[in-house]
Amino acid sequence: MSEPGAPPAYAVVEVPARRLRGGRAEEGRDRLAAEAPLEIRFGGRPFTVLLRTPGHDEELVAGFLFTEGIVAAAGDLVSLGHPEMLLDADCRNVVEVELAPGRAVAPESRAFYASASCGVCGKNSIADLAVHAPAVTSSLAVPAGLLELLPARLREAQPAFDATGGLHAAGLFDARGTLLAAREDIGRHNAVDKLVGWALNDGRLPLAEAVLVVSGRLGFEIVQKAIMAGLPLVAGVGAASSLAAALAESFGVTLAAFVRPGSMTVFGDGRRVQAVGP
Amino acid sequence: MSEPGAPPAYAVVEVPARRLRGGRAEEGRDRLAAEAPLEIRFGGRPFTVLLRTPGHDEELVAGFLFTEGIVAAAGDLVSLGHPEMLLDADCRNVVEVELAPGRAVAPESRAFYASASCGVCGKNSIADLAVHAPAVTSSLAVPAGLLELLPARLREAQPAFDATGGLHAAGLFDARGTLLAAREDIGRHNAVDKLVGWALNDGRLPLAEAVLVVSGRLGFEIVQKAIMAGLPLVAGVGAASSLAAALAESFGVTLAAFVRPGSMTVFGDGRRVQAVGP
Repeated sequence: MSEPGAPPAYAVVEVPARRLRGGRAEEGRDRLAAEAPLEIRFGGRPFTVLLRTPGHDEELVAGFLFTEGIVAAAGDLVSLGHPEMLLDADCRNVVEVELAPGRAVAPESRAFYASASCGVCGKNSIADLAVHAPAVTSSLAVPAGLLELLPARLREAQPAFDATGGLHAAGLFDARGTLLAAREDIGRHNAVDKLVGWALNDGRLPLAEAVLVVSGRLGFEIVQKAIMAGLPLVAGVGAASSLAAALAESFGVTLAAFVRPGSMTVFGDGRRVQAVGP
Repeated sequence: MSEPGAPPAYAVVEVPARRLRGGRAEEGRDRLAAEAPLEIRFGGRPFTVLLRTPGHDEELVAGFLFTEGIVAAAGDLVSLGHPEMLLDADCRNVVEVELAPGRAVAPESRAFYASASCGVCGKNSIADLAVHAPAVTSSLAVPAGLLELLPARLREAQPAFDATGGLHAAGLFDARGTLLAAREDIGRHNAVDKLVGWALNDGRLPLAEAVLVVSGRLGFEIVQKAIMAGLPLVAGVGAASSLAAALAESFGVTLAAFVRPGSMTVFGDGRRVQAVGP
């Protein structure tokens, strides 16, 4: 199990703040979720900028390259130059990616962009929004009574949220509800990419027997990444979007929205969430 | 006042859903927030794709072009070809933009991208994340006791959220707390762009005497758009990010986070939120 432990110092930034309580002001300091750009380069050439919360940057980059279809296996990635972990005035964080010759090719020099909460960047026409992956195949089935407990278990693994109240989280669970890994980020799609990068590095892809739980809403980008990682079941406390539900239906993914003790709403293949009754 | 009224039909999509209550399943239908790509073209050339909730698309495109610095005035935009409002299987929504010759120039053919919750797309290096706008100047000051009421007033103007539970909203208020306009979208930065487009078309920019209230968190993208629109005060019920607070500080914007009856936390120029006490 990949235990997140205490929040990494660079995930939280303390700044001057003025608190008003009952109309009275008090000068002080507040702890904010760190948001900083990470530039990904191939051969020195800027490729994309992710707005992310620093921490697990190698996983983030590996997972991003995987869910964007640029690398297909851990061996496609030779190295990630050490990110310059500088939260300086320019927030200049840069990572150099080296791909395995003959196995993966850096995308053409066209610009390709992404940002916090952004999972369809770099697509230059609507046609490109189509997800280029096979449908997810899995025999996973989870009792509803277990699935509804997972958001609270994820919540317990969010140390930086505890400090700031301002971070999304994503967690991978096995079919018995055991947490495999959890990651936090200001962009929920980054938190998912960090998990996928962890799984890629750990030889766990496709994640055909795992459940992805996210802290927020279930939109296109989350389902797109789940499909790429082979995840059959995605659950969250928030609402699903129309595009997320349609994509889940098309690619054999089950979406569980508004998950809470005693209730949820399921889209796509409903057999993966086992009800008590008929 | 631009009253949103009932949710437009195309903002809400009804799909098959399986509800589980106390472990028992019931097949039915659920109403989801619509999420669909909108492709923006210049002269037939694909320029960017926004993942947005259909509705107020002309405002969205005008506001997006303004906050991205492509147009500076309503007159820079000659026309927006009618978006194809088709929520078909391909979600093929396209808008053709015509710029005023000699006043605005379609950006070079390089790809330039955006998506739901994405406000820094199309920037190809970290240096480009810098916001190219003057600091906001305004004499606006709002009593804390008034500001803390505005999120609830915005909530009352969210018909599509009422239907789906899955949409962000942004609202513009005057210094007396009167709602000027409210917009909903699956991407909170789109909701802000829709408001900016409304203000652009209505000759109200810069919005030096208005308050922007958003339903979610206060990240980089929201503050960047506020600066472009000349908005001095941005408030939300969620947390601010470190980059949002830094940007607000640099550009003379006041951020009010975790705004609720009786309390809030203020970053940047605190004089714009008037406390009762010292």
